[in-house]
Amino acid sequence: MGRHALVLGGARSGKTGFAERLALRTAHKPAYLATAEALDAEMRDRVESHQRGRAEHFTTIEEPVALSGALIAAAATHDVILVDCLTLWISNLLGAGEDVAQAVDELATTLTQIQHAKIILVSNEVGLGIVPDNKLARMFRDLAGATHQQLAQICDDVYFVVAGLPMTLKGERAE
Amino acid sequence: MGRHALVLGGARSGKTGFAERLALRTAHKPAYLATAEALDAEMRDRVESHQRGRAEHFTTIEEPVALSGALIAAAATHDVILVDCLTLWISNLLGAGEDVAQAVDELATTLTQIQHAKIILVSNEVGLGIVPDNKLARMFRDLAGATHQQLAQICDDVYFVVAGLPMTLKGERAE
Amino acid sequence: MGRHALVLGGARSGKTGFAERLALRTAHKPAYLATAEALDAEMRDRVESHQRGRAEHFTTIEEPVALSGALIAAAATHDVILVDCLTLWISNLLGAGEDVAQAVDELATTLTQIQHAKIILVSNEVGLGIVPDNKLARMFRDLAGATHQQLAQICDDVYFVVAGLPMTLKGERAE
Repeated sequence: MGRHALVLGGARSGKTGFAERLALRTAHKPAYLATAEALDAEMRDRVESHQRGRAEHFTTIEEPVALSGALIAAAATHDVILVDCLTLWISNLLGAGEDVAQAVDELATTLTQIQHAKIILVSNEVGLGIVPDNKLARMFRDLAGATHQQLAQICDDVYFVVAGLPMTLKGERAE
Repeated sequence: MGRHALVLGGARSGKTGFAERLALRTAHKPAYLATAEALDAEMRDRVESHQRGRAEHFTTIEEPVALSGALIAAAATHDVILVDCLTLWISNLLGAGEDVAQAVDELATTLTQIQHAKIILVSNEVGLGIVPDNKLARMFRDLAGATHQQLAQICDDVYFVVAGLPMTLKGERAE
Repeated sequence: MGRHALVLGGARSGKTGFAERLALRTAHKPAYLATAEALDAEMRDRVESHQRGRAEHFTTIEEPVALSGALIAAAATHDVILVDCLTLWISNLLGAGEDVAQAVDELATTLTQIQHAKIILVSNEVGLGIVPDNKLARMFRDLAGATHQQLAQICDDVYFVVAGLPMTLKGERAE
């Protein structure tokens, strides 16, 4: 298996920017795998403004649901694949009526099988606020937390990014 | 006083799992002191699924409100007591109309008096989201934050757990 | 430019207390620049209870909006200026219909120009909970996060405070 990384952080914490720098440190042919679906104008603006800054270096792939398959395909032609982000992917899985736990197990297996590419997973830490009022939000943050724990065990390097600066939870210090 | 620890983390951050590993590292007769009251089905499911994994190693004690008394009693027959969790305890105190600040002062005194057992306190960090709309939630997170600060000064080791991985805020590095 | 610091943390995380200790370590004539406007009773209580503890050491200055100008003025007569806090300042800027990005650019420039005083910026980390329902709250946490990233690049020392204990994100270890 390649040396995979998990990059956690809050909203606008600079986690994607850090993941990009991490990717470009070793990549010859990096891919950016976006799980976002640009469903509304607010989202479309975000996606496009991010894309412009990245287009020079990364091939962009879009896959909102079938992440493991997309990773296997991308790993055939790219040496680093940045997945942005897992929380949106979980949200898309729920929207599509998929079994999240099963999809995460499949992703975990896929990561251990990908030998010749480095996978960098970006995800939102959403569990550090007040308990949400509605049950769906509580379920979502439970799923996100459980997913992060499971993937943190598999990844070699795990970072928690605050204000653009990474704290190393596991593995190699960065920056 | 024994070498006490405070383990902070978000929802499904793996804080309890880490606290259990920490407890089992030194414990001969560990107790798990649950502050949860299984009032509804969702909560009962959580409590029971956690209990199954732990039953092999820990004696389970349940005490939603009178924490200091329960700790003193448990310390007579156990060498490590894991308290899970303080935020639920604060919530129970509020529900019972108790004075939270006074109960936390009492807990702080109790901790310094317990000499022959190690107390591991688990608590939810809830103050890192957007300011909640309702006043009760704001009061709750203020109480939780103040409690964490006060107990962090007393405890020898303080950890902040993200994705199952501890960052050491104070004291001995773990894992 | 002086050695400036950014201190991030959640609600009641002890970030202001840590920033005060940091200030008093080197200051001969420290100022406390409050961005809070005591608009309601709840806020007034908070502001006053904090002020009492600090009055002995710090000169208090109040400026809810025109932060850069107030810093330049204060730097003429104080060697350390603690700004508490940036999230409230952003909130005040929005309330006054000001351009937040422009005001933050101006603050960044001001920081690099202040040579003979140390500026310590305190701010709330608000991006680690569930995505807020309302658009204004989402915009606010995006602005806060972007501001933290921008200022973290300029500041020499950046800390993330949990339970009164600082984690060093950048620069000199403290405590």
